[in-house]
Amino acid sequence: MKLASLPGGRDGRLVVVSPDLAWYADASTVTATLQSALDDWERFEPQLRALAENLAHGSVPRERFHEREALAPLPRAYQWADGSAYVNHVVLVRKARGAELPDSFWHDPLMYQGGSDDLRGARSPIVLADEAWGCDMEAEVCVVTGDLPQGASREEGLAAVRLVGLVNDVSLRNLIPGELAKGFGFVQSKPATAFSPVFVTPDELGDGWKDGKLSGVLMVDLNGEPFGRADAGQEMTFDFGTLIAHLARTRNLGAGSIIGSGTVSNRDADGSPGRPVSEGGRGYSCIAEQRMVETILTGEAKTPFMHHGDRVRIDMRDAAGHSIFGAIEQEVVPLA
Amino acid sequence: MKLASLPGGRDGRLVVVSPDLAWYADASTVTATLQSALDDWERFEPQLRALAENLAHGSVPRERFHEREALAPLPRAYQWADGSAYVNHVVLVRKARGAELPDSFWHDPLMYQGGSDDLRGARSPIVLADEAWGCDMEAEVCVVTGDLPQGASREEGLAAVRLVGLVNDVSLRNLIPGELAKGFGFVQSKPATAFSPVFVTPDELGDGWKDGKLSGVLMVDLNGEPFGRADAGQEMTFDFGTLIAHLARTRNLGAGSIIGSGTVSNRDADGSPGRPVSEGGRGYSCIAEQRMVETILTGEAKTPFMHHGDRVRIDMRDAAGHSIFGAIEQEVVPLA
Repeated sequence: MKLASLPGGRDGRLVVVSPDLAWYADASTVTATLQSALDDWERFEPQLRALAENLAHGSVPRERFHEREALAPLPRAYQWADGSAYVNHVVLVRKARGAELPDSFWHDPLMYQGGSDDLRGARSPIVLADEAWGCDMEAEVCVVTGDLPQGASREEGLAAVRLVGLVNDVSLRNLIPGELAKGFGFVQSKPATAFSPVFVTPDELGDGWKDGKLSGVLMVDLNGEPFGRADAGQEMTFDFGTLIAHLARTRNLGAGSIIGSGTVSNRDADGSPGRPVSEGGRGYSCIAEQRMVETILTGEAKTPFMHHGDRVRIDMRDAAGHSIFGAIEQEVVPLA
Repeated sequence: MKLASLPGGRDGRLVVVSPDLAWYADASTVTATLQSALDDWERFEPQLRALAENLAHGSVPRERFHEREALAPLPRAYQWADGSAYVNHVVLVRKARGAELPDSFWHDPLMYQGGSDDLRGARSPIVLADEAWGCDMEAEVCVVTGDLPQGASREEGLAAVRLVGLVNDVSLRNLIPGELAKGFGFVQSKPATAFSPVFVTPDELGDGWKDGKLSGVLMVDLNGEPFGRADAGQEMTFDFGTLIAHLARTRNLGAGSIIGSGTVSNRDADGSPGRPVSEGGRGYSCIAEQRMVETILTGEAKTPFMHHGDRVRIDMRDAAGHSIFGAIEQEVVPLA
């Protein structure tokens, strides 16, 4: 089942979307918003699935689904917590500045609490007041959970995964060092995060969802050119169950919590830091990673961060080549 | 005007509370929840004020208000971001470990993004799975904002302050060093945060609310003994307008964002680190601060963090000695 939110109020209005993303059926007869569906999932999930089936059979009114009209599936959420599960990404960050990776990073997930009061739709522009802030994309996978009690296990965490989607965790690279040096994590350096047009239930992903990981090539394009082709199912050191359990260690999680994977990152086949797509590599899911590899190889970062007018596209396709979640396509624009 | 949420659904049901906290009137005729009131404040505020006036005149049905029944005014919120505006607190942290305070800490606010999916009521127990985590209270002031655009100024931030309240920003001190060393801020070391029984509009505070600061003695008791008597209006280096503008620098803020002051902290009158209340000082709004002062003075921290069965009480009174927000009173209990 695929779900989206179309414009209508602060939380949008919930619709069920056909697997090919061509059609939608209004879900207001079931419940008004995705958050309200998640608040009472046991009750609403079967009704939404019945609606999806009726949509497939043409037995309910349907309308054309346009990705460009979709809000974030949760236009605001009670939690957005982002892991850094692809440790290769962290290895590169460290290597670029000549630091070793502490062994604990392979066992203890890195995670930050993000702002969730203004989550952006897939076509929402990235509003950047100052190009000197070093605007970067971070292409990621995310899941949405149900309620979980404090101390929940990995297995309980996995059982509570309701939906899977894609994220652009926009980062302001040149604000990060100063902010992290203060010790309290990201605030200004993580502006509004954007999400794929639809979120899907794990069963919809078939073999692509296994052991708390989503397999498939995360296609990241920058200004129309292939930039990243890493597989999200590979080298994910911490699966989503582990990330959820990490977050729930000392407190309950509320229904509708969004948990991110961190920037998807694969090593090169030969074990080297990774080559650009144009050189036959899997490329990168963020510009910073390409800059790190440039720094490691040549002593200097060459690829600039994003400027006004630059466009990033993030997508994942199924075996038949069809987009699973719809594409995130954002242009960087000045603050009006 | 004073507002509270009583049990009823995930977001509680909104009530208007009398200034003396003795009575309430159901506000469901106006709107169902505090979040929905904040979502459309221009429309609902006048109606809620009319209801408060009718409650004062006895012209609407009223019920006894019991602080113990109140949920957090926002039982879940789209944002909880906590500053560290009382730099004396940070000075002590640093001094206790022999480090200087960078000058920038006096000009650039320290702030972290907190979890807001499970905010606790004033009498909710602090559920602590492991006493070795070093459970501490942090008594603070908070405000709730309306919508604010990216780049909002301090003045715009102040104009968007809808409500003021008290917070217990519970912290797990022994988890903090490891977590901050990882560089991504607090996740496990900040369990569920608790809020005063009522939030109040700034006008209700009279002279107590001025230039984005709340004046008044924040009364913190530990196990029935006075522990902290610092004045929240003194030595607040960054007022709430400045904290809000800091948070809004790179993104919009959504209505219902809760912004905390950080642990309220006053220097001693003679400029020394501060004495316990029992020795004539203003004491401390968290145990860690008392331990820092002990470390500075004797080389060793003596006061233990909280154990199961310990109780913390946080309150602020008006000139007549009446509680303004109701009291936060929490007992530390084991995980069931």
